Amino acid sequence: MQIGMVGLGKMGGNMAERLRRGGHDVVGYDRDPAVSDVASLKELVERLEAPRAVWVMVPAGAPTQATVEELGQLLSAGDIVIDGGNSHYVDDQKHGTELATRGIGFVDCGVSGGVWGLENGYALMVGGADSDIQRLMPIFQTLKPQGEDGFVHAGQIGAGHFAKMVHNGIEYGMMQAFAEGWELLEAADVVTDVAGAFKSWRHGTVIRSWLLDLMVRALEEDPDLSELRGYAQDSGEGRWTVQAAVDHAVPLPVITAALYARFASRQDDSPAMKVVAALRNQFGGHAVTA
Amino acid sequence: MQIGMVGLGKMGGNMAERLRRGGHDVVGYDRDPAVSDVASLKELVERLEAPRAVWVMVPAGAPTQATVEELGQLLSAGDIVIDGGNSHYVDDQKHGTELATRGIGFVDCGVSGGVWGLENGYALMVGGADSDIQRLMPIFQTLKPQGEDGFVHAGQIGAGHFAKMVHNGIEYGMMQAFAEGWELLEAADVVTDVAGAFKSWRHGTVIRSWLLDLMVRALEEDPDLSELRGYAQDSGEGRWTVQAAVDHAVPLPVITAALYARFASRQDDSPAMKVVAALRNQFGGHAVTA
Amino acid sequence: MQIGMVGLGKMGGNMAERLRRGGHDVVGYDRDPAVSDVASLKELVERLEAPRAVWVMVPAGAPTQATVEELGQLLSAGDIVIDGGNSHYVDDQKHGTELATRGIGFVDCGVSGGVWGLENGYALMVGGADSDIQRLMPIFQTLKPQGEDGFVHAGQIGAGHFAKMVHNGIEYGMMQAFAEGWELLEAADVVTDVAGAFKSWRHGTVIRSWLLDLMVRALEEDPDLSELRGYAQDSGEGRWTVQAAVDHAVPLPVITAALYARFASRQDDSPAMKVVAALRNQFGGHAVTA
Amino acid sequence: MQIGMVGLGKMGGNMAERLRRGGHDVVGYDRDPAVSDVASLKELVERLEAPRAVWVMVPAGAPTQATVEELGQLLSAGDIVIDGGNSHYVDDQKHGTELATRGIGFVDCGVSGGVWGLENGYALMVGGADSDIQRLMPIFQTLKPQGEDGFVHAGQIGAGHFAKMVHNGIEYGMMQAFAEGWELLEAADVVTDVAGAFKSWRHGTVIRSWLLDLMVRALEEDPDLSELRGYAQDSGEGRWTVQAAVDHAVPLPVITAALYARFASRQDDSPAMKVVAALRNQFGGHAVTA
Repeated sequence: MQIGMVGLGKMGGNMAERLRRGGHDVVGYDRDPAVSDVASLKELVERLEAPRAVWVMVPAGAPTQATVEELGQLLSAGDIVIDGGNSHYVDDQKHGTELATRGIGFVDCGVSGGVWGLENGYALMVGGADSDIQRLMPIFQTLKPQGEDGFVHAGQIGAGHFAKMVHNGIEYGMMQAFAEGWELLEAADVVTDVAGAFKSWRHGTVIRSWLLDLMVRALEEDPDLSELRGYAQDSGEGRWTVQAAVDHAVPLPVITAALYARFASRQDDSPAMKVVAALRNQFGGHAVTA
Repeated sequence: MQIGMVGLGKMGGNMAERLRRGGHDVVGYDRDPAVSDVASLKELVERLEAPRAVWVMVPAGAPTQATVEELGQLLSAGDIVIDGGNSHYVDDQKHGTELATRGIGFVDCGVSGGVWGLENGYALMVGGADSDIQRLMPIFQTLKPQGEDGFVHAGQIGAGHFAKMVHNGIEYGMMQAFAEGWELLEAADVVTDVAGAFKSWRHGTVIRSWLLDLMVRALEEDPDLSELRGYAQDSGEGRWTVQAAVDHAVPLPVITAALYARFASRQDDSPAMKVVAALRNQFGGHAVTA
Repeated sequence: MQIGMVGLGKMGGNMAERLRRGGHDVVGYDRDPAVSDVASLKELVERLEAPRAVWVMVPAGAPTQATVEELGQLLSAGDIVIDGGNSHYVDDQKHGTELATRGIGFVDCGVSGGVWGLENGYALMVGGADSDIQRLMPIFQTLKPQGEDGFVHAGQIGAGHFAKMVHNGIEYGMMQAFAEGWELLEAADVVTDVAGAFKSWRHGTVIRSWLLDLMVRALEEDPDLSELRGYAQDSGEGRWTVQAAVDHAVPLPVITAALYARFASRQDDSPAMKVVAALRNQFGGHAVTA
Repeated sequence: MQIGMVGLGKMGGNMAERLRRGGHDVVGYDRDPAVSDVASLKELVERLEAPRAVWVMVPAGAPTQATVEELGQLLSAGDIVIDGGNSHYVDDQKHGTELATRGIGFVDCGVSGGVWGLENGYALMVGGADSDIQRLMPIFQTLKPQGEDGFVHAGQIGAGHFAKMVHNGIEYGMMQAFAEGWELLEAADVVTDVAGAFKSWRHGTVIRSWLLDLMVRALEEDPDLSELRGYAQDSGEGRWTVQAAVDHAVPLPVITAALYARFASRQDDSPAMKVVAALRNQFGGHAVTA
């Protein structure tokens, strides 16, 4: 089928490519004229035949907000906007309501797959009305991995990004679990072949997983990770997961600990621990480190 | 090759069976005469040709301790004891030292695989001297899963159980990550097909893993887990992981949180939260729940 | 000076009483005619001489929102509204902006003191313009405890409730620390006089504090807290503290753990731990508790 | 009464001084001849009249172990050894059993008070037999703060250090709570007078405490703690608290988080976060920081 793709960066560009390989007619728009098929969103909309489907794959927050608003002005009743970025589910619900006033459908789609998606397919979690999802199924079928899994219609608008958000929260916890295990093995001097232990775990163990495979790859490239600093960004979904949990009074000790470990990894010095050092000095005369 | 197997329960019995299927000559001993090939440890040792190999697969702690001590009296220089149970690595080091005074070798072996091991093989993590491990390789080759992974000679005596201990610590963290994600999805009423979301994650996502596969199986059998209580035992390795981390000043926030969640799951009422309730009542006149 | 007090419940009523004892002219309004001096907010405003000061002491959220909006219609330029409830600092900033369009001042005031405040004074943390705070100082002086502390002009609008929010976050962490210590002492059977240990700590120790004094009172009334259930509500500030921390990428492991312990205390069964139980059953055939 | 004091460092020296001011006859021994009253432990024992009491105030672990063993050889039935250091309660139980075989009593005493103890008194938590404690009460009365609190006979041998251990665990949690609150206030730019907020909390709030007083002192000396690094040692009791909790299946999320924050504060780079960075790079092509 025909689809417009807005945002042709690392993710959007590869997804457009996978769709084309699957026989779809993709009209792409990007701010960078070198990769764009059209000069503007307006031209993109004109190039598509109604009823249109436009996939938005731009950074979450203000860029997505601006794109959805502009599309709301350009599109017509019966068209559908898909937000495939990492948007907050609350924003989805707002966008859906706004577009609905003009008869435009809205579908949110959480996408997992990273740099591996072009070849292996993208896991998709979508939220929206049944009829909208149904119309877009040819697109989803091409983007998703082969086999029965890799796609879920998770619920109404927002459910796709909510599911993706929780997926990422789980991912934070799993990554941190592997990370802590590695640190302990390295610290303890009992296991002398740490990389070998990780490699061995790839078969027959309870923790075998794609993240373990990636970890083995990383250790093969750099056995003691000496090329890296212990510094990790967070991309939003981890924070939203914790905030949603707090809203719903759900305790998330593991996922939150993993998020906090990332926060701490980006601090040159811990302000909190200055206080601990100051207090120890006050009551015990413990030496402080200036 | 020939091997003695002490303890023919769920794990030991299946491992003996896998070894026999692999062509080994297994002489099994168990306290239960119905499954035992011999009447006593003494008879077991007599039935084996020197140099002997005896695999101990009995509960960790006192039973393993007693078995290793008795074998120390019965075996001769050049024989090897393998402890395949869930022993603490500190006990391994003690056992190794004791047996070495009589010229008996000791190998510790962490085993993962549970009820799936008979068919799929057991992931093995072993610690001990190179020469002892070398002699036992035919046994390890048969027990381990096919393929290049599933076995590691992790280091000297204790390293096998240490690696297995950390494996289990990682497992605790991963399980809790999935658990927290499920609880949030169930609590939030945004995603209406929670089981479908988990199933979809099996392909193309970052969190695809054997534990996810098992979770999907569990949700297929009981979609809202209403048949279960939120109650989880811990088998020792999680505790030892945390204690080893504390010994080595390694922060393990995720693994520890997962362990504590298990502790809390077994409390009818939280003593700590009685104190919080009492304090809130004292300063704020907040109602308490009697 | 003259002041209107809206909300004459446990907190507002006692504060009005303390202000009257301090010589101020308090006109009180409450939905309950039995305790109200006037029949309506409108009458309250009419009874006060301009420039007026009206202290709002009603539940945070919708009730405060409605009261501030109605006052915004009734008051005149030069009047001041004080929100002494447990409002979110983000709401303060919104209220301040709305009232400013009509020339009405806004001051947010975090209040600590609970049932002890009438006699001992209320600790006050205020946010707002210098001139507004200055005009209200006679009120603050009467409400606050004697001595140099117990009052801070913490910053612009919102700063008072933000400071109070963080105060409560710290309070959560401290309470949980005492609670955990008590649970461990009770569990371990080494210390046989647990209540005596807490009592002894009141002097000469690092942890002496008002919360410890309250804990000793609670243990004197009910030495093993057998009259209580381990069940604790949370009043909002703890959640907002965690959410503000996540917004600012500040790791708060202790305060968050204390909040999560409260969440968990209100669950009859832990959904997350059902998943852990289900997974253990899947891979290990571990018995589950139905 | 007469007492021997072994170890005349910062703590032992001040305690000897407080005892002398209280009219006791203190014979001090230290490895440093400049401060020692006698040349050896042997001479110390000879200088004391039977039945003797010898207070050991040397570093926990090997030094205490060696001192107790040597005293066991030098003392006679009816004498008492008091261990006032920061020993592990398990060591106390061992020492008590060993000394009992020679008829020598043993009392363990947890001491809180730091550099303030000489003037204000030391909070004491003691474990041991009633008769031994009774005989030593004149010493305890002089060392403890004035008033009814500051002393507890917590239970049998080990109970004093166990109570002190838990006291310190609680202290870790409280300090971290203050530390986190400070970090959030500094990060958020809503409260502009952070030091003022802490100072104001000294009266009328729920969190008023000696630690808060010390924090205000620290902020008065260095308002933004810019002179300090966020680096904190741990002295053993925090670790033992967590390990005792794990032994007893008691969840201690707050105290453990506080301990882990100290561990992390001493790492130049987090090994665990190298793994997280490596994994993010593997699956997402996320830039890493070398």
